[in-house]
Amino acid sequence: MNPRIFALLLAAAALLDAAEGKWTPAQVLELDRTWLSKQGLEIPPERLWDPKTGEGLLSAVISTGGCSAAFVSSDGLFLTNHHCLFGILQEHSTTANDFITHGFLASGPEGELRSKTTRVTMPHRFTDVTKDVLAAVPAGADDLARYRAIEGKQKQLVAECERAKGHRCRVAAFDGGLYYQLVDAIEIADVRLVYAPPRSVGEFGGEIDNFAWPRHAGDYAIGRAYVNGEPYRPKYWLPLAKEGVAPGSFVMVMGYPGTTFRAFTAAEMNELKRNFERRVDLYGEFIRTLEETTAGKPEGEIAVAATLKSLNNSFKNAQGQLQGLERGRLLEKQAEAERAVVAWAAGRPEFRDAMTARDGLAAMIEQNGATWERDALLAAIPAGARALSLATTVVRAAIERQKSDAERDPAYMDRELARMADRLEREQKNYFEPADRALFAVFVRRALGLGARERIASVDAAFPDAAGVAGRVAALYAGTQVMDAVQRRAMFGETPAQLKARRDPLLELAFTIVPEQIALRDRQDRTLGTISRLRPAWRRAVIAHAGKPVAPDANSTLRVTFGHVAGYSPRDAVFYTPQSTLSGMVEKVTGKDPFQAPANVLAAARAREFGRWADPRLKDVPVDFLSDADTTGGNSGSPVVNGKGELVGANFDRVWENVANDFGYNSAVARNVITDVRYVLWNLDRVQHGIWLLRDLGVE
Amino acid sequence: MNPRIFALLLAAAALLDAAEGKWTPAQVLELDRTWLSKQGLEIPPERLWDPKTGEGLLSAVISTGGCSAAFVSSDGLFLTNHHCLFGILQEHSTTANDFITHGFLASGPEGELRSKTTRVTMPHRFTDVTKDVLAAVPAGADDLARYRAIEGKQKQLVAECERAKGHRCRVAAFDGGLYYQLVDAIEIADVRLVYAPPRSVGEFGGEIDNFAWPRHAGDYAIGRAYVNGEPYRPKYWLPLAKEGVAPGSFVMVMGYPGTTFRAFTAAEMNELKRNFERRVDLYGEFIRTLEETTAGKPEGEIAVAATLKSLNNSFKNAQGQLQGLERGRLLEKQAEAERAVVAWAAGRPEFRDAMTARDGLAAMIEQNGATWERDALLAAIPAGARALSLATTVVRAAIERQKSDAERDPAYMDRELARMADRLEREQKNYFEPADRALFAVFVRRALGLGARERIASVDAAFPDAAGVAGRVAALYAGTQVMDAVQRRAMFGETPAQLKARRDPLLELAFTIVPEQIALRDRQDRTLGTISRLRPAWRRAVIAHAGKPVAPDANSTLRVTFGHVAGYSPRDAVFYTPQSTLSGMVEKVTGKDPFQAPANVLAAARAREFGRWADPRLKDVPVDFLSDADTTGGNSGSPVVNGKGELVGANFDRVWENVANDFGYNSAVARNVITDVRYVLWNLDRVQHGIWLLRDLGVE
Repeated sequence: MNPRIFALLLAAAALLDAAEGKWTPAQVLELDRTWLSKQGLEIPPERLWDPKTGEGLLSAVISTGGCSAAFVSSDGLFLTNHHCLFGILQEHSTTANDFITHGFLASGPEGELRSKTTRVTMPHRFTDVTKDVLAAVPAGADDLARYRAIEGKQKQLVAECERAKGHRCRVAAFDGGLYYQLVDAIEIADVRLVYAPPRSVGEFGGEIDNFAWPRHAGDYAIGRAYVNGEPYRPKYWLPLAKEGVAPGSFVMVMGYPGTTFRAFTAAEMNELKRNFERRVDLYGEFIRTLEETTAGKPEGEIAVAATLKSLNNSFKNAQGQLQGLERGRLLEKQAEAERAVVAWAAGRPEFRDAMTARDGLAAMIEQNGATWERDALLAAIPAGARALSLATTVVRAAIERQKSDAERDPAYMDRELARMADRLEREQKNYFEPADRALFAVFVRRALGLGARERIASVDAAFPDAAGVAGRVAALYAGTQVMDAVQRRAMFGETPAQLKARRDPLLELAFTIVPEQIALRDRQDRTLGTISRLRPAWRRAVIAHAGKPVAPDANSTLRVTFGHVAGYSPRDAVFYTPQSTLSGMVEKVTGKDPFQAPANVLAAARAREFGRWADPRLKDVPVDFLSDADTTGGNSGSPVVNGKGELVGANFDRVWENVANDFGYNSAVARNVITDVRYVLWNLDRVQHGIWLLRDLGVE
Repeated sequence: MNPRIFALLLAAAALLDAAEGKWTPAQVLELDRTWLSKQGLEIPPERLWDPKTGEGLLSAVISTGGCSAAFVSSDGLFLTNHHCLFGILQEHSTTANDFITHGFLASGPEGELRSKTTRVTMPHRFTDVTKDVLAAVPAGADDLARYRAIEGKQKQLVAECERAKGHRCRVAAFDGGLYYQLVDAIEIADVRLVYAPPRSVGEFGGEIDNFAWPRHAGDYAIGRAYVNGEPYRPKYWLPLAKEGVAPGSFVMVMGYPGTTFRAFTAAEMNELKRNFERRVDLYGEFIRTLEETTAGKPEGEIAVAATLKSLNNSFKNAQGQLQGLERGRLLEKQAEAERAVVAWAAGRPEFRDAMTARDGLAAMIEQNGATWERDALLAAIPAGARALSLATTVVRAAIERQKSDAERDPAYMDRELARMADRLEREQKNYFEPADRALFAVFVRRALGLGARERIASVDAAFPDAAGVAGRVAALYAGTQVMDAVQRRAMFGETPAQLKARRDPLLELAFTIVPEQIALRDRQDRTLGTISRLRPAWRRAVIAHAGKPVAPDANSTLRVTFGHVAGYSPRDAVFYTPQSTLSGMVEKVTGKDPFQAPANVLAAARAREFGRWADPRLKDVPVDFLSDADTTGGNSGSPVVNGKGELVGANFDRVWENVANDFGYNSAVARNVITDVRYVLWNLDRVQHGIWLLRDLGVE
């Protein structure tokens, strides 16, 4: 880029402030209107969320379960990430019709691909239920009883809410229990894929570019929601922006961010850090094990590909968290901030309980330390060998089903069991026995290596000596029917007695491990009870000390964050500009995965067939861009809109230097990565010639 | 860096134009004064070079033979690169006093380290001798006779010039013979090392950072010239700048750039491209061979380290040239530019000979093609096995010494022989027999693989079958005394008859190869004769077509280039800012070579002991910076001065994307890398506490 143009662009960007905070819809109205308008919001905040009606433009933002998305047309079209609708491509792909590799564009509404499992939910009503929830806690309850009472009340509220047909509800706790909200959403079960680019576009750069900038992935897909076989007509949807973004442009990112830890005390953060260290260690061994046991075996490599991708992502994420914690000195900064709150609260009797609460949280961490290694290993069972994970799930489900629905662990309530059955079925395609046996052995060897006060009795009993692990694991696999999909489906309906009667050796082992998991669950629930008792008092002091609205930690509820398109400096003398281009994508092409691109994309790019989608300053089609909006996992697919409320992109990643922002926002490197909507439209127009869909999207 | 500061800095830089051209001192006065002043030159151009006196600030710029340098004090101190005075560190380093590792700072003028071999020359007088040279060519001479006549005249002019004691002269051809200049320089043989940083500072980043940006090497060293045992008092010297550079600052880089090819026709460039391809191939094999034969053998690794470094540098440079040619489409652009000149000249009878000349150059390239592979291999002998290179040099010297001094190949004239003897002696430390034997075999195998019309008869005779190469090479090494330093020194004084009487098998082989080298030399001289006949006519048309001063190709004569401190974009969405910092250096430190730094440097950096050397905008000590001045090899150690003629840095490298600028200047990526003088002074002041030297440098 010409330094002159570059400098002028940057000058504009630099005059604006970065903004921390994943705001709840209600909080948008508490923010300073003048500040919002100065940032670049052109519409009244009430257009985003009207407290009187309890709806607004934010109602257009939907969840695919794990990902965010947004309606972009009056007849139910929605935009999200390629990786968020990847499951539909998988459902419909065959060797003859390889939609994964070649992408998919419906020839018209009638050709859309209906999913068997993908559902979307859209926000309907948010109700504060804090008083109800807290009133359910009996006087004198210990922390486990406290949590179980809270959970019981939540189940009851959800059941009442879901009496309305098609509603999907939950009670969300904010900052560990500062307040509780009943989130009433409407679920749409008929979701169809309209358009997804080839994998080489959607995942361009692959693992190498994951978390990286510059990025050139077109991580987008378009679906449509149907109700009663008719396209759903949402009340709110986001029109496509007439003009694209430039450095300095104001943007809002809306969606369902999953989990952050900023309200944690430094002591709690330190425990989390230990968690990430353990994950790097354990997942690192899982990854090496899967790679070694499948090397040179194509059927094995294919089977574990999805698991490896997910493990690699978690592994790299954990590394990024640790590096960011270190680099940003985040624990030290949190401790410093806490000291300031403590000093401030010391002279204010109304906040005296905050100090007690902080000490109590520290004591809780101390106590958890006693069985920390064992608990971490038990908690990792779902990420390890499929056989162990599925066997324990089957046994646990049988045990839980003995109870009334309301008394069960929430994951095993009737409203979840159908989904769980689907998951159990899908798992089969990820199974490769030699790799799975090796993962199983990793778990056993680690269990046998635990300290004297953290032994897992059931594993000790089943594996009396370390030398015999491989042989015993092989015998388990040879004798079990858990990894037979048909048998497993049958098991999933059986009672504990029926399962025991099978004399399946793996189920027998699972019957001894599940009680350990249930005991772990009790410890975890007790911890949650402690947190629900203590963290609110601490947070009230922190927020009062701040003297302005403070966004609660992400908890998969609907949020909006305000930011600007902005580059950043990853290291000395290097500055990343915030927009990547089609020509930059072509420059990266080596012809080898993950740097290949479809021939028609390359031909159109090389012919500079930009159509109207070129950016006037870049003189090129923009592909991805960066903003300093405040995002985390779960914001995948989030609509990114401009100050007028028009769609400019689909969020899909954070940069490496920003992974640790789950612990704290650092404006210098807080950057998320967004596919520019102009790249979507360029592909649709100049590569796919999808005229009918462009028209449906409002493009003339 | 804060994007806001960054943008403001860039905005300043972007308003200025980049400038192509390595100008001769005389050309400085032909340039538009208003343009120069607008660029940032604050002193009158005559201060740089006064045509009346034939001297000016440029007279402060000296040559160390291969590197550039500049006087920086009234008593003979000069600044150049660490790697340019590395030889003096080698001369004086012992296991007990390891100046290479720890660096060296004289305790005072009496403690400076005198070099046995380093000399510097400073410009004295430039005289146009074009008429004299061309008058020497007899009518009707063919191109070989033409070149020999030109060479003979040059030798005569040099001999006359060097009659003055202490003068070192040469006749330089500009653009292949457009004009000739007698360069009269004064040589100073008493050169002493005053200050060099530890290797970990001078070579920070090593091979990994070579040609790279961001860079954090402190590639500087300070020496002093002595005459009659007294510090030399130069008439001109460059004071240190009071203020450092910032993005956009005007700078001049002065020095002795070696060789560029911009005046070459596209056809000639194409042949050069082939040369670089062959170099990548051959040097690649040399590098692999040296690495394989010395792996795990410390004495071998040490012996070949310098050779490997040099080969790697040439290899990487050749790769960069090829990549740059490709990326910048330089051949296509040159061909395009030529077509424009041809079209323009077609209607102008006075330039009709330009077209004939261009065709003649193309025919010459065509003709060279017939023995191109053989000639390339013969020409590579000095870069390969030491034994072959030294044996042929000894034999060639004996043959040449039979002739009168004036009739010899210039490299073997008396004025060169003493230096050659020094070189032959120094070679011993680079010798490791197993590696050398392997390199010898590479040469032989490649010779045996040449096409039928390019055979090297002497090699064919000595190695009748490919299978026996290794054995025959081993026998040569077992039987020769050439690699015995004492014997070799004796050989260097002997006649051909005496050498033959030795019955040394390697010398006997050399006696058959040297005639091939002499025949190659004849072909090369004939080519030079053709060029001297044709290129001037072509260049006259090119320059007339340009209608403004055009700088001639670099030819190791004194030049100055004007530019600005500026960053650049190496790829999509990445921008390199033009200054690196001490903190950036610390961030790179891994503790392992090449990313380690001395403890005292790290301590001072971490304590932010910046003294007065911090840059007010960076709030950090600047280490290196980039400018878009037009440099090439030979500009190592070049003084970089501001618009007032004050020293701001020492040039030491080009960036990777700019290596191919030898073929053409590309303002987007034409960046050279310069050690900021403030980093030199920070090290001297805050790390070394070298008060006396700071005072000598004019720092109070």
